[in-house]
Amino acid sequence: MSLYSEIFYSKEVNSLFSNHNHISKMLLVEAALAKAQAEEGIIPKEAATIIEQCCNVNYIDLEQLKNDVHLGGNAAIPLVKQLVRIVKNNDFEASKYVHFGATSQDIIDTATVLLIQEYLHWVQGKTHQLKSILLELTKSHRETLMMGRTLLQQAKPITFGLKTAGWLEALHRTDNRLEEAKMRVLSIQLGGAVGSGNKRITAEVKQTFANLLGLSDAFTWQAHRDNFSEWASVLSILSGTLGKIAKDISLLMQTEIGEVYEPAAPGRGGSSTMPHKRNPVICAVILANAMRTPNLTATMHSSMIQEHERSAGLWHAEWEVLTQLMALTAGTVEKSIELLSGLEVHPERMLHNLELTNGLIYAENVSLALAQKMGKIQAHELVEKACEIAIRDQKHLKQVLLDQSVDLADLDSYFDPKNSIGQSISFVDSIIATYENQL
Amino acid sequence: MSLYSEIFYSKEVNSLFSNHNHISKMLLVEAALAKAQAEEGIIPKEAATIIEQCCNVNYIDLEQLKNDVHLGGNAAIPLVKQLVRIVKNNDFEASKYVHFGATSQDIIDTATVLLIQEYLHWVQGKTHQLKSILLELTKSHRETLMMGRTLLQQAKPITFGLKTAGWLEALHRTDNRLEEAKMRVLSIQLGGAVGSGNKRITAEVKQTFANLLGLSDAFTWQAHRDNFSEWASVLSILSGTLGKIAKDISLLMQTEIGEVYEPAAPGRGGSSTMPHKRNPVICAVILANAMRTPNLTATMHSSMIQEHERSAGLWHAEWEVLTQLMALTAGTVEKSIELLSGLEVHPERMLHNLELTNGLIYAENVSLALAQKMGKIQAHELVEKACEIAIRDQKHLKQVLLDQSVDLADLDSYFDPKNSIGQSISFVDSIIATYENQL
Amino acid sequence: MSLYSEIFYSKEVNSLFSNHNHISKMLLVEAALAKAQAEEGIIPKEAATIIEQCCNVNYIDLEQLKNDVHLGGNAAIPLVKQLVRIVKNNDFEASKYVHFGATSQDIIDTATVLLIQEYLHWVQGKTHQLKSILLELTKSHRETLMMGRTLLQQAKPITFGLKTAGWLEALHRTDNRLEEAKMRVLSIQLGGAVGSGNKRITAEVKQTFANLLGLSDAFTWQAHRDNFSEWASVLSILSGTLGKIAKDISLLMQTEIGEVYEPAAPGRGGSSTMPHKRNPVICAVILANAMRTPNLTATMHSSMIQEHERSAGLWHAEWEVLTQLMALTAGTVEKSIELLSGLEVHPERMLHNLELTNGLIYAENVSLALAQKMGKIQAHELVEKACEIAIRDQKHLKQVLLDQSVDLADLDSYFDPKNSIGQSISFVDSIIATYENQL
Amino acid sequence: MSLYSEIFYSKEVNSLFSNHNHISKMLLVEAALAKAQAEEGIIPKEAATIIEQCCNVNYIDLEQLKNDVHLGGNAAIPLVKQLVRIVKNNDFEASKYVHFGATSQDIIDTATVLLIQEYLHWVQGKTHQLKSILLELTKSHRETLMMGRTLLQQAKPITFGLKTAGWLEALHRTDNRLEEAKMRVLSIQLGGAVGSGNKRITAEVKQTFANLLGLSDAFTWQAHRDNFSEWASVLSILSGTLGKIAKDISLLMQTEIGEVYEPAAPGRGGSSTMPHKRNPVICAVILANAMRTPNLTATMHSSMIQEHERSAGLWHAEWEVLTQLMALTAGTVEKSIELLSGLEVHPERMLHNLELTNGLIYAENVSLALAQKMGKIQAHELVEKACEIAIRDQKHLKQVLLDQSVDLADLDSYFDPKNSIGQSISFVDSIIATYENQL
Repeated sequence: MSLYSEIFYSKEVNSLFSNHNHISKMLLVEAALAKAQAEEGIIPKEAATIIEQCCNVNYIDLEQLKNDVHLGGNAAIPLVKQLVRIVKNNDFEASKYVHFGATSQDIIDTATVLLIQEYLHWVQGKTHQLKSILLELTKSHRETLMMGRTLLQQAKPITFGLKTAGWLEALHRTDNRLEEAKMRVLSIQLGGAVGSGNKRITAEVKQTFANLLGLSDAFTWQAHRDNFSEWASVLSILSGTLGKIAKDISLLMQTEIGEVYEPAAPGRGGSSTMPHKRNPVICAVILANAMRTPNLTATMHSSMIQEHERSAGLWHAEWEVLTQLMALTAGTVEKSIELLSGLEVHPERMLHNLELTNGLIYAENVSLALAQKMGKIQAHELVEKACEIAIRDQKHLKQVLLDQSVDLADLDSYFDPKNSIGQSISFVDSIIATYENQL
Repeated sequence: MSLYSEIFYSKEVNSLFSNHNHISKMLLVEAALAKAQAEEGIIPKEAATIIEQCCNVNYIDLEQLKNDVHLGGNAAIPLVKQLVRIVKNNDFEASKYVHFGATSQDIIDTATVLLIQEYLHWVQGKTHQLKSILLELTKSHRETLMMGRTLLQQAKPITFGLKTAGWLEALHRTDNRLEEAKMRVLSIQLGGAVGSGNKRITAEVKQTFANLLGLSDAFTWQAHRDNFSEWASVLSILSGTLGKIAKDISLLMQTEIGEVYEPAAPGRGGSSTMPHKRNPVICAVILANAMRTPNLTATMHSSMIQEHERSAGLWHAEWEVLTQLMALTAGTVEKSIELLSGLEVHPERMLHNLELTNGLIYAENVSLALAQKMGKIQAHELVEKACEIAIRDQKHLKQVLLDQSVDLADLDSYFDPKNSIGQSISFVDSIIATYENQL
Repeated sequence: MSLYSEIFYSKEVNSLFSNHNHISKMLLVEAALAKAQAEEGIIPKEAATIIEQCCNVNYIDLEQLKNDVHLGGNAAIPLVKQLVRIVKNNDFEASKYVHFGATSQDIIDTATVLLIQEYLHWVQGKTHQLKSILLELTKSHRETLMMGRTLLQQAKPITFGLKTAGWLEALHRTDNRLEEAKMRVLSIQLGGAVGSGNKRITAEVKQTFANLLGLSDAFTWQAHRDNFSEWASVLSILSGTLGKIAKDISLLMQTEIGEVYEPAAPGRGGSSTMPHKRNPVICAVILANAMRTPNLTATMHSSMIQEHERSAGLWHAEWEVLTQLMALTAGTVEKSIELLSGLEVHPERMLHNLELTNGLIYAENVSLALAQKMGKIQAHELVEKACEIAIRDQKHLKQVLLDQSVDLADLDSYFDPKNSIGQSISFVDSIIATYENQL
Repeated sequence: MSLYSEIFYSKEVNSLFSNHNHISKMLLVEAALAKAQAEEGIIPKEAATIIEQCCNVNYIDLEQLKNDVHLGGNAAIPLVKQLVRIVKNNDFEASKYVHFGATSQDIIDTATVLLIQEYLHWVQGKTHQLKSILLELTKSHRETLMMGRTLLQQAKPITFGLKTAGWLEALHRTDNRLEEAKMRVLSIQLGGAVGSGNKRITAEVKQTFANLLGLSDAFTWQAHRDNFSEWASVLSILSGTLGKIAKDISLLMQTEIGEVYEPAAPGRGGSSTMPHKRNPVICAVILANAMRTPNLTATMHSSMIQEHERSAGLWHAEWEVLTQLMALTAGTVEKSIELLSGLEVHPERMLHNLELTNGLIYAENVSLALAQKMGKIQAHELVEKACEIAIRDQKHLKQVLLDQSVDLADLDSYFDPKNSIGQSISFVDSIIATYENQL
């Protein structure tokens, strides 16, 4: 699968999910457990110190671990085996206190939470950056006229800033979701074999363990996976919003529209045999990822129906899926920064496209203006006929009306897109005002 | 599809999603729009009053509307048509101001939000009720001994209260999610044809419109569906947690386990030809619903990739899916109340099952105790052999140890489940303490 | 949900899935069972005759049945109860032989298969019709020149017939899949309580029962749902192919492209205030449905993991999902016939769009031709520069080359789309030849 | 993600999907193209020979390729670049004919088909092996008595052979599906830039190219992905059937049931601190995989809605998903062989469990027998009361009836499970007869 690692993913985040970092986090959990138990007087302080020193990923034989992983059915069992041996080599007594009273799932789940914590830090930095880029785009294009399109048809004019303001708002909402999910998901899992705790895993040990790891204490959630399902959902929503943006851009890049382009780079998206092509290659990647995240999220949700105190299969189903969801979303986020920070906007092409219907997009304006003079029904009929002529003869509607000597003093103004963008600019300005201080 | 409406759904919530109530909400939106425009001086107050009076679902020909719905491709177009006619019959002038400056999506989306508002009120009442039931169960069974099971195998004893406390905590987390999602999802959609507003839909009209409906004002989200995807996700997570509970109960009801039963009712779940059967029929329904919600959620997430200012298809994909997701979750919630409020618990069967392994579940206890006398390795070997004999001869492990004159003064105590439940009771008590004041 | 029944669904197929028809099919199964048992000498022939006469949906109180359905957790239990009462009123002795030796699932599953049989007949008629329409389109447009587009960019010319030939081929493959799935899915389920058969349900009874219903005999599949998952998959693939066609058409209908339009109908897809709009309302419905079918299919596949001899929940999860999948696909099929049979094709606009890049799409042609004269590298450089000038000055590439006195005798021919469509026509002709005889 | 490669996957199949093998297949396609074009007289035979010799994965710099892959957005572009350089180093003239007239997608799609071909060969070998194992199990256990269970409740006795016969039949149906899908999916994709062919890609070249690769010729399917969706569906159905088997086994392994066990291996599934545990670790993996395949299939189906002649994103979405689906299913298949070939069956425990309800499972037998003596209603009442006593007093039903001096000569026979298994043995025998000759 790695052939495409440079396409769909983020290098930085891929290394976060490397075996090396994954095992490091598991060892961090084992160390914190020993330390917490020492602080609460359950194991000797010296033992904890030795265990902590041994909890170093460089001492671990990762290849051996990968080979052994299928025996116990998870990664903690062979890891603890290696760790015990390492500690034993240093201090036989200390080795008795490795993984003391814990169960594999305690280590695996809490390590996953630590990976999420690291990822969250990364992703929040990136969404902040994306919001700044979008704010700049919005400020630059608050007045840039373009067509608004509904059901893939030209509808009425807007400004490009109105579009990007909508992108910004949507992204901001998910930024808030990340913050709220964070409160729940960054919690320890520590409960022993069946989640009941034991003499080695007391309420006090749990609290100290949580403090040491910078996580919240929590009632055991080994068979309750709502936090992970929520986390998956929020990432999938983030991917969805960025997918919507990429969809818009890929459509605006169509040869026949050509209003906005993703940044060009040598050798990317172009074609030596087809010099007119500007393939939306970044958009394609973002859209591809956005096709996959919803169904990975569904797997996380379906996997919530876990049996008793630990599931036979549904817990295991989460492992790769959650990682993949995070990795794909990271790729999407990184590509979106590339896409938006170098976005090419062609206001002149936008203006050109506003004229493609020969003024028909302004028919309602004229009709409303005439209605005040001649009554609604008469006005409507007159304009409807004029539209038919404009279409039939491929003439501009304004010309048709002039040909018919329609009496409207300020006829030109009804055909000026600036007068047809509604509250675009004031709506945009309120968004700018909101985010100017935050970002 | 209605053949099963009594099985999977809630009658109350089904009527909330009736055509009658759905159209009522759309009319409420039209009325609020007119009223807001009147308050802001955009249309005459008299016109607004008349429009408001006409916005009554009883004046609407629902059959006609259903027939016309495919023409415009949505329900707002034929509804507005009927509404204009009704208003016109009362006051020609007022009819000019119906749906003034709005687009179909404004009405449909805001009406959906009003349905969500009504549903949220219902569902939060029910989750509160569920939490109270679970708190009572937890209090009653804080000391009720039972097996904890992992990977479908007996592992170590817990109390039934520990299990229900976990159910309660998980449910409570989603209660918080509902509250957070509420802040976002209960927002108006009002933007006119392309979301830019217009002379009739100003910032002030939007704010007043929102106030009138008890919703938040919001930047147009017509092609940004993150709020609905979040809403779907939270419901799916709620279904997942209740599904996990039903899964546990259905497993505990197995003939061979028989520890907990869903409430019996005449004619339900039993079989006249198989008198020993107690089918988990309520659980089956909850589990069936929980199979469906994750993939409906995936459809909502996939549908986020909407084009430009309104999508050709993806918006439409949401309509039935979101309703179905809410309806199924409502069914799940209602059945869960029925399930949990009448739950039959059989503590004596739980005790009986604790003995099924002939004391093997306590082997570790004995081994740890002996270790202090004879060293860890010797103790381990002795107990391992005793276990082998117990299995081979189908004898109780305690008896095997007695036969071997193992010298442990308090041997009985190691075989008492009360001494093997770890921190179950203190963990449970902290949950009880937390919720006692809240519920 | 029924507010949108006219939008997403087929009236004909909705009535096929009515409670009335559904219950009819269940009664047909009960009748066939009695008849088969009589033929095999297991019950008296008179009893079978009376039972058969009573198996009439008009004797059933459907409202009562709907109300009772939740008690037993399925529709067969209350139906059999009513049927026994009806038979008893006619002949007490015969009533002993109703549903003799069968289990609810036998009736429900076999009735579902009968509904699938009826649906299959309908859908195969429709796909045949669709193939005929596509063949006609292909014949009419084998030479109609248009742009081929990749990654939403103009690429190289094709003919419209090449596009429709691809649609036809894809549809035909799924027609074959329907035929193959049919061989498996049209099988009886008859096994009694646990699928083992019994004295009343023998191998002979099963075979006769199958013959009477026009289905295949089959080993009990009550907890093996692969046939239904396959059936779901094939329908979802059919929806996917029709969705792809609708996607193409909706993109070709874009205001800026305007090459193909879905059929116009009064009041549909147009807008009185936006006379230039031709909303792809049929496409939107097909695309909406195609968003939903894949995830309904996933639910069917996920539901395969059924426990033992009958599942507690997963079987129930299938009921509405399979019906909905069939109903949505039927809507898609019916709308696709409407879409394709009235498709408006605008060859002149296609030609116009071929010129949008000012001849850049032919740059490779020129480059290849010049290469034979001046060498590949020189030719490539010359054309590349000419393209740059064409873009910069918004001039036609041919003019640029003429300005540079490029020496190519047949320069015009390189800019003629007819010469750039590769094997389009021969490929199309082979498709026409293949289907001409079949359809 | 690779930490779990030993858990969820097959080593053999993982190497099939290695970059090395993937690129080999792409080179095979390039070589076949050149050879076909030479055979059809389009390029010089010498050029084809040289190209073929250069199409060797060992000449490719895979790291460089992985780095360049994101530029063009796919793996073919950088591969062709390297290949051209390699050929050029051998023969400048020949290098002109590399990838002659083809497009990236031709190479990528056809290479994927070649991987599917190799995978199909592997998987069909494995399903054949699985069927043989299941046939042996069925033959060994055609008479092994056990409980049939519905809705997780004991229902009526069956034989274990009846259960395994059902597993065999379901697997066999998917074997047929593989064979049918094979006819379609093993087809070339060759069409050039927009699928129209060109002077270098003619009907004859396509046919020869197909012959050389052992694939079927096909009309271009570059934007029609029904074959891949079908292929995904069939694999997901295979995973579903194997998941159902693993579910049954994991349930039968429950401590409280203990009828069937997955094979034990040192260090696997056991626990030194919990000697009574036999974790279903193989089942857990199969079930985990079966949770993921349906939603990967949904992504494949959703990705069918591809735009025009090549999609911007949906094509890309397939790449990793299809591979992952195949890899997970391969893991499932391999683990299932391990699971079933070493399955431990405990007939004595099955017999023991048949007695758990104190004979209540035979109540209907007695009732039917008594009915012939005393009438149905009287018999039913008598037995119902006896059941109540049996439950209340925890007595065996037979004893209760004896206590009441119920007059049935052959009372014992009604409580003999052998007499309650219906047609189990004859049904099983017909399966054995069917497969005996095939396998």
